[in-house]
Amino acid sequence: MVIIALLTDFGTKDYFVGAMKGAILSINENVHLIDITHEIEPQDIKSASFNLRACYKNFMVGTIFVAVVDPGVGSDRRAILVETDDYFFIAPDNGLLSFIFNETEDFRVFELTSKQFFAREISQTFHGRDVFAPVAAHLSNGVKPDEFGARIEDFARFDENAPRRISETEIEAEIIEIDRFGNLITNLKREDLPEKFALLIGETKIEKLQSYFAESACGEIFMIFGSAGFLEIAAFQDSAKNILHAETGQEILVKLAKIL
Amino acid sequence: MVIIALLTDFGTKDYFVGAMKGAILSINENVHLIDITHEIEPQDIKSASFNLRACYKNFMVGTIFVAVVDPGVGSDRRAILVETDDYFFIAPDNGLLSFIFNETEDFRVFELTSKQFFAREISQTFHGRDVFAPVAAHLSNGVKPDEFGARIEDFARFDENAPRRISETEIEAEIIEIDRFGNLITNLKREDLPEKFALLIGETKIEKLQSYFAESACGEIFMIFGSAGFLEIAAFQDSAKNILHAETGQEILVKLAKIL
Amino acid sequence: MVIIALLTDFGTKDYFVGAMKGAILSINENVHLIDITHEIEPQDIKSASFNLRACYKNFMVGTIFVAVVDPGVGSDRRAILVETDDYFFIAPDNGLLSFIFNETEDFRVFELTSKQFFAREISQTFHGRDVFAPVAAHLSNGVKPDEFGARIEDFARFDENAPRRISETEIEAEIIEIDRFGNLITNLKREDLPEKFALLIGETKIEKLQSYFAESACGEIFMIFGSAGFLEIAAFQDSAKNILHAETGQEILVKLAKIL
Repeated sequence: MVIIALLTDFGTKDYFVGAMKGAILSINENVHLIDITHEIEPQDIKSASFNLRACYKNFMVGTIFVAVVDPGVGSDRRAILVETDDYFFIAPDNGLLSFIFNETEDFRVFELTSKQFFAREISQTFHGRDVFAPVAAHLSNGVKPDEFGARIEDFARFDENAPRRISETEIEAEIIEIDRFGNLITNLKREDLPEKFALLIGETKIEKLQSYFAESACGEIFMIFGSAGFLEIAAFQDSAKNILHAETGQEILVKLAKIL
Repeated sequence: MVIIALLTDFGTKDYFVGAMKGAILSINENVHLIDITHEIEPQDIKSASFNLRACYKNFMVGTIFVAVVDPGVGSDRRAILVETDDYFFIAPDNGLLSFIFNETEDFRVFELTSKQFFAREISQTFHGRDVFAPVAAHLSNGVKPDEFGARIEDFARFDENAPRRISETEIEAEIIEIDRFGNLITNLKREDLPEKFALLIGETKIEKLQSYFAESACGEIFMIFGSAGFLEIAAFQDSAKNILHAETGQEILVKLAKIL
Repeated sequence: MVIIALLTDFGTKDYFVGAMKGAILSINENVHLIDITHEIEPQDIKSASFNLRACYKNFMVGTIFVAVVDPGVGSDRRAILVETDDYFFIAPDNGLLSFIFNETEDFRVFELTSKQFFAREISQTFHGRDVFAPVAAHLSNGVKPDEFGARIEDFARFDENAPRRISETEIEAEIIEIDRFGNLITNLKREDLPEKFALLIGETKIEKLQSYFAESACGEIFMIFGSAGFLEIAAFQDSAKNILHAETGQEILVKLAKIL
């Protein structure tokens, strides 16, 4: 039984996700449908990318990921299927899958053009249901990647949003995602950072690096390496987002040991 | 493996949907449970109807739909099972399934009265768990529709909320649903409309009809035929609902070509 | 096919639940994954307890419940597996499963210590993915409870939050949960109450006990025995929570017949 894992910005209040699942199961009823999330902020390709990147390796080899955050739906933006040695990814060609291209050695990208694998009628506002879902289902039925269209090399690809060393003692970084608990996820990985450092966010300097949440009192701001591999700014049983009035995309500054 | 697809107003923060699924799987563990949505606004039968109507045809023949938006739960309102040539629908008899009666040639309606297919104890506030879920599970196990109760003809049925031609140059229409993106879905179908027309919503006149979202600049209001087959009022990467302060049920006016 | 039912406070907007499911399916793809809810208020152990208690008996014998509301994640709080005659429960040892200990005759509690059943690398912020999910999957594969760790007796356990008789004519009770409809669920069971009684909540006295919602007019406050077996304060097609400005934990007073 193949797993098809879905990630979209369709929300869960409308018929959209149900329609996608119905379309998939009508082509192959022997799939295991898993929702990663459907609550990506509308059109937020970066957030979609972050969340898919943070969990795809937890899935078994052979899993098919369908990621639809698609402001260009119906335009001439392309739709793609990416095959790695372990997984398949189906998405609009808008950079959502850049992390695959950046962190995978061996991958192949196919443009989805073979209409026999799409719905008979295609709504220009809902390719999730009429293009991406049926392609995923046919793929799970054993259709080969190159049957969906030709291999392409000029797919959309964004560089990783990496921290920048801006002086001997400073690194410029960014909040790339805020989770439901209000934890602020930065683009800083362990290897970007020395043993000792402090963070400056707005007017607030944070020096405490914890290894688990309950180490501090409620409401106190601290740093912690989170489950997606990035440094996070958090508050025990409270929302760092609310306390710091923080936003995705907000700049933060790493102050290195020398000037501490 | 039979598909049982669920649509309710139970929300996802409480134990309600889990209880329904537990009840179904306790009777037949070999079903594929699919959530269409559980976030219908509390007691909004029209919205439930819209969303189920918009996606049921995406599901394979034999699918059992369980739709529970049920302000009259526990009262003497009846519970029904509707069999069409392709699908089964289980719901309270409150008009939620009117679209089936209006758009299907051949269907049979049964009142659910056979208590042996209900839970042993029935909460008067939660027939979703104690009546609708077990009936769906028994149906998926092969129980025949007429074993659940007698056929009835006097089921609740609302006429379709169709646009009205009110003068030579005007059609009165309505916003029947607003989706998570803030797109305003009207009750106007392509066949209700000439080649050229404009819409009047509040003080705003809309003349641009697009075929996909990204055709206009961000925040600009336009019309588009949406994925449920109705004319929608939308804004690229923005919410038409917020821009126009629009509400479900709000009247809109179609201005036909003559006076444009 | 074993059912693994999940209840967490992880929300549905992030990759968390997807990561847990991926982790489970990577170990055993032949499970039926069911979401009870992931929208428990962050760190609200009592609400998690209430919701799991309210629905677990709807599931078939053999079901594995994974309940992760875990403010102490990464600290030295223990993780446990509870085996009853009918079910398995996996959770942090923080009292979340107290209702099992309080209402079950025969149960065994094991501390999860056998690292071979955890993820190879364990994030100190996400045991849901790295401890609880893999343990559930291995359990569903037939690993015996005592292989996960030693049996313990000193697990965390809270007494049931029972109503208190405070005078001949008064019982002190509490709102223990508020559902999505705004119904206020109290800790009063039918057996706690005489035939005739009234409730005092804030300044409002409620005397009407209904057997179903639609018995009264919209917006009128009444009492009703709800689907979890507790007395609820509700309003037909309206939110008792909003009308009464009520909160979880709020005290209520039962006025017994004598003084009515």
